[in-house]
Amino acid sequence: MRGLYIGRFQPFHYGHLRALEWTLSRVDEVIIGIGSAQFSHTWENPFTAGERVEMIWRTLKSRKLLERCIISIIPDTNGMHSLWVSVVRLFTPKFDVVFTNDRLSRRLFEEEGYRVEGIPFYKRELYSATRIRKLMLEGSAWKEYVPKEVVDVIEEIKGVERLRYLFTNQASGRSRSTSKTK
Amino acid sequence: MRGLYIGRFQPFHYGHLRALEWTLSRVDEVIIGIGSAQFSHTWENPFTAGERVEMIWRTLKSRKLLERCIISIIPDTNGMHSLWVSVVRLFTPKFDVVFTNDRLSRRLFEEEGYRVEGIPFYKRELYSATRIRKLMLEGSAWKEYVPKEVVDVIEEIKGVERLRYLFTNQASGRSRSTSKTK
Amino acid sequence: MRGLYIGRFQPFHYGHLRALEWTLSRVDEVIIGIGSAQFSHTWENPFTAGERVEMIWRTLKSRKLLERCIISIIPDTNGMHSLWVSVVRLFTPKFDVVFTNDRLSRRLFEEEGYRVEGIPFYKRELYSATRIRKLMLEGSAWKEYVPKEVVDVIEEIKGVERLRYLFTNQASGRSRSTSKTK
Amino acid sequence: MRGLYIGRFQPFHYGHLRALEWTLSRVDEVIIGIGSAQFSHTWENPFTAGERVEMIWRTLKSRKLLERCIISIIPDTNGMHSLWVSVVRLFTPKFDVVFTNDRLSRRLFEEEGYRVEGIPFYKRELYSATRIRKLMLEGSAWKEYVPKEVVDVIEEIKGVERLRYLFTNQASGRSRSTSKTK
Amino acid sequence: MRGLYIGRFQPFHYGHLRALEWTLSRVDEVIIGIGSAQFSHTWENPFTAGERVEMIWRTLKSRKLLERCIISIIPDTNGMHSLWVSVVRLFTPKFDVVFTNDRLSRRLFEEEGYRVEGIPFYKRELYSATRIRKLMLEGSAWKEYVPKEVVDVIEEIKGVERLRYLFTNQASGRSRSTSKTK
Amino acid sequence: MRGLYIGRFQPFHYGHLRALEWTLSRVDEVIIGIGSAQFSHTWENPFTAGERVEMIWRTLKSRKLLERCIISIIPDTNGMHSLWVSVVRLFTPKFDVVFTNDRLSRRLFEEEGYRVEGIPFYKRELYSATRIRKLMLEGSAWKEYVPKEVVDVIEEIKGVERLRYLFTNQASGRSRSTSKTK
Repeated sequence: MRGLYIGRFQPFHYGHLRALEWTLSRVDEVIIGIGSAQFSHTWENPFTAGERVEMIWRTLKSRKLLERCIISIIPDTNGMHSLWVSVVRLFTPKFDVVFTNDRLSRRLFEEEGYRVEGIPFYKRELYSATRIRKLMLEGSAWKEYVPKEVVDVIEEIKGVERLRYLFTNQASGRSRSTSKTK
Repeated sequence: MRGLYIGRFQPFHYGHLRALEWTLSRVDEVIIGIGSAQFSHTWENPFTAGERVEMIWRTLKSRKLLERCIISIIPDTNGMHSLWVSVVRLFTPKFDVVFTNDRLSRRLFEEEGYRVEGIPFYKRELYSATRIRKLMLEGSAWKEYVPKEVVDVIEEIKGVERLRYLFTNQASGRSRSTSKTK
Repeated sequence: MRGLYIGRFQPFHYGHLRALEWTLSRVDEVIIGIGSAQFSHTWENPFTAGERVEMIWRTLKSRKLLERCIISIIPDTNGMHSLWVSVVRLFTPKFDVVFTNDRLSRRLFEEEGYRVEGIPFYKRELYSATRIRKLMLEGSAWKEYVPKEVVDVIEEIKGVERLRYLFTNQASGRSRSTSKTK
Repeated sequence: MRGLYIGRFQPFHYGHLRALEWTLSRVDEVIIGIGSAQFSHTWENPFTAGERVEMIWRTLKSRKLLERCIISIIPDTNGMHSLWVSVVRLFTPKFDVVFTNDRLSRRLFEEEGYRVEGIPFYKRELYSATRIRKLMLEGSAWKEYVPKEVVDVIEEIKGVERLRYLFTNQASGRSRSTSKTK
Repeated sequence: MRGLYIGRFQPFHYGHLRALEWTLSRVDEVIIGIGSAQFSHTWENPFTAGERVEMIWRTLKSRKLLERCIISIIPDTNGMHSLWVSVVRLFTPKFDVVFTNDRLSRRLFEEEGYRVEGIPFYKRELYSATRIRKLMLEGSAWKEYVPKEVVDVIEEIKGVERLRYLFTNQASGRSRSTSKTK
Repeated sequence: MRGLYIGRFQPFHYGHLRALEWTLSRVDEVIIGIGSAQFSHTWENPFTAGERVEMIWRTLKSRKLLERCIISIIPDTNGMHSLWVSVVRLFTPKFDVVFTNDRLSRRLFEEEGYRVEGIPFYKRELYSATRIRKLMLEGSAWKEYVPKEVVDVIEEIKGVERLRYLFTNQASGRSRSTSKTK
């Protein structure tokens, strides 16, 4: 049996890895779907799809999980949510069950007749991508929350520098990411 | 003479029906343009274009209005407002006058030389789509504000369940509708 | 029971009307889906979606068919065929069976588990939209092949003049319609 | 040597002109890139790309700057920031240095290896497009902050009337510009 | 009075320049609209919009025409021809008359009520962009057919090398330009 | 060192596998980029991106190549070739060299300064995706030309049936794949 586990993975952290391991304890193979794939350089989505593929692939490789996991890329539908399940299916191999805690995703798959299961959170107050990005921004310790391979990728692409450059001393919220031509 | 009456109809309620009847007292035929047609499953636009066509078509049928009304579907232009009048004209038959209370719509049609008329509101504090969606969300009585046919459609598609599933106990505003891959 | 009958209807002719009547003999209601809705002014798709809505709506009205038919508009997916069934479902009310003779459409719906039925052709050598467009282009008699209401619409929008203007004395095929800025 | 100076120019004001003159003191020629080109009729982007071209072209013409400046149009990438530098390069002639104070723009060009320089602000508390739009909205004196030619263009297109019509007595923020079909 | 002169200018040659001069003898100012702006590296459209801006700007500059000409960029609508006039108007300043020999363009502007005029051809058998591209491909003399400034641009961007690299010894027609991932 | 090997892989055959093995003899790791990812159900692109991921992943798994290969998905740019290298970089991890025999791809990467190398063909007259699709269509023996794992995937998705259904007894060329709504 094969499961689909979708996330944005901005960045891929130990909470994601635990969730992945939990799903691997319930199905034979897992497709890891990287969502909102076309976006980058925003507060919500600072890393490109390619950078996220790199983070996940290296983490899987060092843990000998590549033979049970397939990495896939899923563009956002820009609010055309009725098309989302079809977009997922277009870009991923077949799967039998969807693992997600996101309500919209759950609903959309259920309306199409898919079996959907939630994933137990692992110390969510610590392992949250938003929190980890904030730690990066503030200059606090963040490396303990992500796999060593993800630390490597973020350092190679100067990811913390990117975050600080883009989001320090600027207004919060949406305008942070779209102020390209003010 | 033919009028164009545009709305999002999320859902189609008695205020819309009154407005439609008022326009029908002034022109021979009315095109009902369903706007923001590509969106669904968001707080602003929970129902698909197809579901809204169904609501309106059944309401018109039971009131013997199908011979004077044409239902059309109009995708949103994603902020390219200068193209909007052309998009409307692409997807609808010809019309002589536009009925709308929306300022942007009014302005865009007027800049293209169209005659635009406002529509008297009918008990707007009661008959508002946003208010009706809130009633659905809270579990309050909402059925009295929409035509019987719309109640039927919403029940068939489990619309209230959809709203409650997607928007209960979650952060307000924009993030409600786009949290697909957190 | 409700059927879906999809076409481009360039223009809507007696063959389409016969096909519609045949489907109406088998189901209670029929959704008429106007495909390739965003295109116009090409040889394959000379008429806008709005003009086609007008042709069909008037034909249905004069035949007292509006209470059993729902007109819907379906944009083309530009080759992303895997999304097509979802796009159809987004823009149309629910249906139980699909009527089509087009192989790609049939295949796409069948792969999604839909019941699909073919439609008997009615004198296809006479009633073909391509042939009727050619008759218009050549100045031959074409009006006998389309309902009176469609003749009216085409005359009101100067449709034959449009065809002749765009496609007379120019190279055949694809280049005919995209030579905008040579 | 040639520079690129990107802005939204909503509207083009004396702060922009000073910045342009400063860049012209450092390079031989300057490409003026009009960003977010596809948007209009919103609070952030009330004027069309064509209207902004007109403002800038007339200002350059009267100051004999047309022989050193090239006006170009650059569509927004809708959050696909990784594509932005390529989009800029697609729509503009070659350049050697980028002048911008915008952090996202600076970062994106630097990640592609471009030389980027900041521009000294000129009385920013007075010469800000947002402030000038607010003055227009409030009916306060705004003409002294933009070149005479820009005043002419705004009057010809009834720009102040457009702003007041769209944004008076309505909710602030994002909803102002997208309430087309409420 | 102001005219609009639209072309793809692949490349800008003496026939275009003659046409431009002819239009300048009839109106005060001319907007030169570069069509199909988003395409490049195909047989029909080998040069980017930015490269074409460069060709035209330099030609205008050396002929002291910058004060009477405005260069604008117009993306193709991918077959949504009904939107094309609106797209042109979005990206260009206002104009009173359209100069074009292209039938589709002429028809679309005329359907919107614009005045459209044809342009006398200047030795079309010699001055044709398609012919000039063929000369480049074959290694024949092509420089005499385009302004000196255009020769410079094409040499700087290694345009002839690009054409020969992409289109030598390959199948003709559409497949030439889209064989990216065979 | 890491290479990028791009193809459409319709389907992934022994020629592709040989090419991959050849690239793996020259670099440490190879990114396999699946191009034209959004298309399917056409003659040129009958299989979805997800189906192609499945073919390649299983082939790599059985040959113990997953630790040296990263599968990525790359949407087509619809003729906006100037954006293509950026799109590739958005959707893939970093790479040092590009392996391709396609001229357009080679040119686009070289214009961006990338090192590009050709790949020796392996019995191209036998191992060609177009030829293999024709064999499938004709009912001839095709399984010997693709890895066993690809045979499995094609059988599971009823790929041969799909090809025969869509393309038997129909006109050749482009029209084959877009006749959805005739």
